[in-house]
Amino acid sequence: MKSPEIVLGHGSGGKLTKDLVDQVFLDSFANPFLSTLTDSALLDFDDQRIALTTDSYVVRPIFFNGGDLGKLAVCGTVNDLSVMGAKPLFITCGFIIEEGYEIESLKRIVKSMKNAAEEAGVAIVAGDTKVVEKGSGDGVFLNTSGVGVVSSGVDLRRERVRPGDSILINGTVGDHGMAVLMSRERFGFEAPIDSDCASLNTLISGILSSGADIKFMRDATRGGVATILNELVSGMEFGVLVDEEKVPVMEEVRALCEILGMDPLYVANEGKVVVVCRSADKENVLKAMKEHPLGRRAEVVGEIVKEPASLVTARTRIGSRRILDLLADDQLPRIC
Amino acid sequence: MKSPEIVLGHGSGGKLTKDLVDQVFLDSFANPFLSTLTDSALLDFDDQRIALTTDSYVVRPIFFNGGDLGKLAVCGTVNDLSVMGAKPLFITCGFIIEEGYEIESLKRIVKSMKNAAEEAGVAIVAGDTKVVEKGSGDGVFLNTSGVGVVSSGVDLRRERVRPGDSILINGTVGDHGMAVLMSRERFGFEAPIDSDCASLNTLISGILSSGADIKFMRDATRGGVATILNELVSGMEFGVLVDEEKVPVMEEVRALCEILGMDPLYVANEGKVVVVCRSADKENVLKAMKEHPLGRRAEVVGEIVKEPASLVTARTRIGSRRILDLLADDQLPRIC
Repeated sequence: MKSPEIVLGHGSGGKLTKDLVDQVFLDSFANPFLSTLTDSALLDFDDQRIALTTDSYVVRPIFFNGGDLGKLAVCGTVNDLSVMGAKPLFITCGFIIEEGYEIESLKRIVKSMKNAAEEAGVAIVAGDTKVVEKGSGDGVFLNTSGVGVVSSGVDLRRERVRPGDSILINGTVGDHGMAVLMSRERFGFEAPIDSDCASLNTLISGILSSGADIKFMRDATRGGVATILNELVSGMEFGVLVDEEKVPVMEEVRALCEILGMDPLYVANEGKVVVVCRSADKENVLKAMKEHPLGRRAEVVGEIVKEPASLVTARTRIGSRRILDLLADDQLPRIC
Repeated sequence: MKSPEIVLGHGSGGKLTKDLVDQVFLDSFANPFLSTLTDSALLDFDDQRIALTTDSYVVRPIFFNGGDLGKLAVCGTVNDLSVMGAKPLFITCGFIIEEGYEIESLKRIVKSMKNAAEEAGVAIVAGDTKVVEKGSGDGVFLNTSGVGVVSSGVDLRRERVRPGDSILINGTVGDHGMAVLMSRERFGFEAPIDSDCASLNTLISGILSSGADIKFMRDATRGGVATILNELVSGMEFGVLVDEEKVPVMEEVRALCEILGMDPLYVANEGKVVVVCRSADKENVLKAMKEHPLGRRAEVVGEIVKEPASLVTARTRIGSRRILDLLADDQLPRIC
């Protein structure tokens, strides 16, 4: 596991990424704001609590079904802020462009960013452009960092999660990963699968203002829902039981996953949020989700359990149990 | 000039970069915070004015005389915040790593970031790691974004600059560019030139608290002092007259520039700030600079003039005048 060189799996968001963070970053960057090298931090400025987040995007192809690098980079950062309970306000962008890249394509990416930013109500306030020689990059890499303000009264921490709490998701899982994969190869499918790439800030503000006691939220990107849930339970005195039958999956996504031997619970999403709330509030949260266009297919998909602690377990369709472990590697590199 | 493809010069910080920004980014990203796609923005949160900045770093080689990618990425972002009159507080980092990169080298980069952050008194609070296939990147690319708080009473705007104002710099120019170049090839030189890569926040806070009326500051990175001064005068009703004899240049840098036919005024720095202040305050600023280890060789290097407006002119050693225009291209790609 302790490879002396970087491998693709180090970027998977799974076990190898965790190893790399533990091994390389944590020692050096240990500070009160950063216990794991997460992509988001909460910072106090006088009376204001501000959320700060960063993400680089290397998705390939740059234009895929249902989105592109530019849209992804804005929505992804808007979502990272939103799941911290912050209202996203400002975004910066850093472009690393390979010599020879067509300026028309760059314009398309920028146009997508503009549209996504307008839709989410955020302003792109600063940027930077670097160019590398042909062969030293891959079209365009894009970093977005974001700043938002956390509403008072919001207290999202996994330490508040208790056995019995409910787990919800706002719709079908695996759409983004399979859409990107289908943009690489068609696999003989007639209709393309569209990425779910979308900004979740208005959906999430609806959830937060529903009156429900929301304890934890995370957007299920790299590594999918299973990876997020593993991060939730890691080192905690509770586990997660997912009711697999309840997890919404598009027919085409399920079919393609079956062909490829993949599990939709591990496939990346870019418009899905996992919410943990008090059980008594679950109908409330479900209602708030379903009232939003991005939550029509929302479901209660599981619950927090006392045993087995620190583990994510699924109740399968045939009634058996299986463990959803943190994957070492990723079958889908460069998904975001 | 309107190339349909990206060329290296688009990343130079000079004329081609300006064209790209005008052509691709400005239309889409126009908003009150962003008139040109600068790498910094000032944002108001209630009573607090916050500075936000982003920069990507693609310097090659990753380890050069006097610094490395990690140190550069922290110092560069600390400096971008500092020249806006902000106290740098928080930094995020986004790594894009090429498959096959040695983890030991990654650790060295991270260690440098840690040291630079400690020295500057900033916390690295969030991060992200992506991996791309071998051949799709070039070792490590690093984005840092930064947040700082602007002290009340600081009003840095080129609109406040007037003819007669003085221009100062805190030391020798061109060190970084020549150091990186010498790390690529030795050119038969005995002693290496060290990059000036350093965090300027304490130097700058000393200048700001000197009581002088500081009107404009900018760190002279890509494109060097001449490019910064061109940005200062662009579209304004004043010009800049640089007294070339006063500009400090290290002997080795001058010699190497002469061999290569380059002008030290256009060569990148990573620890140099250009300051414009009221003429009556220039001795005050010079004193504040010289009291700091990074300002020992500070000089008053020129003044703001009424004519020729919007131009940067230099009084040469032999007493003639020459125009320091914005360069179209850059002789030194991937300098930062």
